[in-house]
Amino acid sequence: MKVLISKKTGDYYNYKGTGDYHNKEGTLKEADILSGKSPIVANTNREFHVSDYNFFDKFVNLKRGPQLITTKDLGYIAARTGLGVGSVVVEAGSGSGAATSFFCRIGCKVYTYEIEKAHYDIAKKNVDSLGFTDYIIENKDLALAIDEGIGVKADTLFLDMPDAEKIVEKDLSFVKSGGYIVCYLPSVSQIQELTKVIASIENTYYIEEISEIIHREWKVWDRVARPMHRKDIDHTAFLVFIRKI
Amino acid sequence: MKVLISKKTGDYYNYKGTGDYHNKEGTLKEADILSGKSPIVANTNREFHVSDYNFFDKFVNLKRGPQLITTKDLGYIAARTGLGVGSVVVEAGSGSGAATSFFCRIGCKVYTYEIEKAHYDIAKKNVDSLGFTDYIIENKDLALAIDEGIGVKADTLFLDMPDAEKIVEKDLSFVKSGGYIVCYLPSVSQIQELTKVIASIENTYYIEEISEIIHREWKVWDRVARPMHRKDIDHTAFLVFIRKI
Amino acid sequence: MKVLISKKTGDYYNYKGTGDYHNKEGTLKEADILSGKSPIVANTNREFHVSDYNFFDKFVNLKRGPQLITTKDLGYIAARTGLGVGSVVVEAGSGSGAATSFFCRIGCKVYTYEIEKAHYDIAKKNVDSLGFTDYIIENKDLALAIDEGIGVKADTLFLDMPDAEKIVEKDLSFVKSGGYIVCYLPSVSQIQELTKVIASIENTYYIEEISEIIHREWKVWDRVARPMHRKDIDHTAFLVFIRKI
Amino acid sequence: MKVLISKKTGDYYNYKGTGDYHNKEGTLKEADILSGKSPIVANTNREFHVSDYNFFDKFVNLKRGPQLITTKDLGYIAARTGLGVGSVVVEAGSGSGAATSFFCRIGCKVYTYEIEKAHYDIAKKNVDSLGFTDYIIENKDLALAIDEGIGVKADTLFLDMPDAEKIVEKDLSFVKSGGYIVCYLPSVSQIQELTKVIASIENTYYIEEISEIIHREWKVWDRVARPMHRKDIDHTAFLVFIRKI
Repeated sequence: MKVLISKKTGDYYNYKGTGDYHNKEGTLKEADILSGKSPIVANTNREFHVSDYNFFDKFVNLKRGPQLITTKDLGYIAARTGLGVGSVVVEAGSGSGAATSFFCRIGCKVYTYEIEKAHYDIAKKNVDSLGFTDYIIENKDLALAIDEGIGVKADTLFLDMPDAEKIVEKDLSFVKSGGYIVCYLPSVSQIQELTKVIASIENTYYIEEISEIIHREWKVWDRVARPMHRKDIDHTAFLVFIRKI
Repeated sequence: MKVLISKKTGDYYNYKGTGDYHNKEGTLKEADILSGKSPIVANTNREFHVSDYNFFDKFVNLKRGPQLITTKDLGYIAARTGLGVGSVVVEAGSGSGAATSFFCRIGCKVYTYEIEKAHYDIAKKNVDSLGFTDYIIENKDLALAIDEGIGVKADTLFLDMPDAEKIVEKDLSFVKSGGYIVCYLPSVSQIQELTKVIASIENTYYIEEISEIIHREWKVWDRVARPMHRKDIDHTAFLVFIRKI
Repeated sequence: MKVLISKKTGDYYNYKGTGDYHNKEGTLKEADILSGKSPIVANTNREFHVSDYNFFDKFVNLKRGPQLITTKDLGYIAARTGLGVGSVVVEAGSGSGAATSFFCRIGCKVYTYEIEKAHYDIAKKNVDSLGFTDYIIENKDLALAIDEGIGVKADTLFLDMPDAEKIVEKDLSFVKSGGYIVCYLPSVSQIQELTKVIASIENTYYIEEISEIIHREWKVWDRVARPMHRKDIDHTAFLVFIRKI
Repeated sequence: MKVLISKKTGDYYNYKGTGDYHNKEGTLKEADILSGKSPIVANTNREFHVSDYNFFDKFVNLKRGPQLITTKDLGYIAARTGLGVGSVVVEAGSGSGAATSFFCRIGCKVYTYEIEKAHYDIAKKNVDSLGFTDYIIENKDLALAIDEGIGVKADTLFLDMPDAEKIVEKDLSFVKSGGYIVCYLPSVSQIQELTKVIASIENTYYIEEISEIIHREWKVWDRVARPMHRKDIDHTAFLVFIRKI
């Protein structure tokens, strides 16, 4: 696959690999696209950079279902909890499979639970489409799975779900000592519900950090150097890092 | 290894694994620390949580040399460029080895160059101390290494060095099409120097993003829910993501 | 004048004071609007709060010409330079008259210069429409006005113009010792141009502060408490506060 | 009064106006300070800029009692509510008198209530020291004053106190229609308490805005252009703007 980048508009076009390519800026010949040369010229005389497709391109082009969790948050979660090759992650819900894919990408073994059948289908399709196999997805309520017994020891339990505190009330002995429960919560009021539950369970959890990651894009080119207008990624969610004692 | 967390002060103490442990809050008995129970009580009657040591603990306790690049930036770089198992990263300078360690952690093969012998020694010691072996570190100027020929195809070239534009002026054909040159630059004026060079090299690079990652910590407990005072991580650096055409 | 606020949509409607009022949510009777009661009911059964019009309403409804400088920036400029009753402000350009109006509102005597005739007309109309009389507006280049001699001693010189450094190169002895030159500059590169000029003029200016004011809106209602989506005011400009020695 | 600014350290020294001036960087002669020349030279050969004292200098040097409300917040409150010459402000608590002084400075008539005698004394001394006379300060609980009857119609009621919602529960008919109740609340949980009360009082209040003002300082000089380290003003408080219907 190739990415075609219009020199005029900066728009990206994904080329899947056969035939001439038509977009709103013109038509590009297959032979040109695959020639290994860049830039190439459309019938409209517009020039396009031709670049190989990369993992990030695939990631941002995953089929959309529920909101994709952003790279700014996923990256921080991985770095902050020390995830990497061989780590075990249990998560719910699967959403669109973005978090599952990211954790697989960096070498984690992932067990993901999604209660909604429609989301489960999208998530499975998305993760599979990226070629990951070292994960298990179940169309099941995580609360129920915990009651039945999670058969692994997890380094991180990642909760991207509205009532995370209801999971934290359960027996989470499958999370390793020194491991993390990470909650992804859009609203401060959800953090308050969560911390109330944490406060009621003695000697099991320690809140290491509550934070938000803010991403600000800049334009620096020629005589301009300023934050971009309307390009800040919106508030997504607060991140709560709870250490299992 | 264990982490001992004071219930009174919230301070962390790293227990390396033999003998009683003395800290400014009291003395803890080895038998108690290794008992598997938590919390345990010091001779001063202060209670301490006992938790297993994790990768993040090791990471933040790396021997300091040059400033450690922060988790907020490393996580975003990995997620934004799609790094993961099997990716090849070339980087300079090695600094304290934090970036090298992080990239190794998530399954990358890393080639790192450090011109300063003192930094090279610290970086090597740090990365080795975390048990990583799939990396190559050289006490050499990256510019020189490029002139001699980097013998691999890189997914990402990570430049944490003052004059990144001098590297970008060189022949970077060892970076794959669709791969990234990521520059970590504290000052806007450095981005300006860099973009000037990029503008002068036609059809080879495409600036996908210039951004900064801001990390804001919160305190949410009991009747309080507010940003923490004096806990914002300072400005570290701007990140420039340049796609190789 | 009255403000009508729809209880359903939260939209504001300005009622100028005669006749029934028709908007896209229905028709409100003049008698109801002026009854002193609130809320009142439209023919569509939608309810509207009725509130007196205030200065802020007038301010945000000024006729648009050039971009209005925002309240977040104006407020900080006033507070940071200590402007108030009796202060003398010289400014350029007049833009839409927003800054002039604000400075008049807090008791300053304002001398404003605008080189573009179309902007001058809008600015004059806007400031007059708010009832301010203690200001002088000229359709003239500030640079020229300075060369001819500004006949007052200014507490603050406010420059909302692209090449502020060209003004700073001139003889600004009409600014009082301890007074400020405040530059409103969208781009870091403009600050760099400005500081180069400042550096070349010895013992006359002292840069007290370069900063930006970021405004973040929140939604706190019922079970929600989070930053609002797409409501952050964009980056407007950096503020440079130069003290006249 | 004069401000002496060290060219070496950038430190400010306030010169009250008689005799030679001794500071940790040397001794400056009275004759030199009052000569009208700048810079002047200390006995240590260090140079100092000499500038007239301005209102902002006085403001930031007010005698400290309770935390001074910051200029970033005061400026925004004034601009956002349209305060200016002739506006009537009722406020509590008086704190250190910073808000009172600022509102007086921009031409408001201020009625300020402070329950703590010690704070009342500091506030009165501070406001008087700036020469303001058009204000009334009472050492009284605002709640009690409201019960007894506030004898004026206020444009803005400014509440810098922990339980602002207890004031909002009272009969605030002394606030004009179209006027504002502005609450300055450090914690999101306080906003939640407040909005619960607002929700219970129908047709009297309309929350126009909940926001925070973030101030970020930059260093731009020579080859550097970056946010300053450790100079961000901490989180101070959230601002709630409630319109009186």
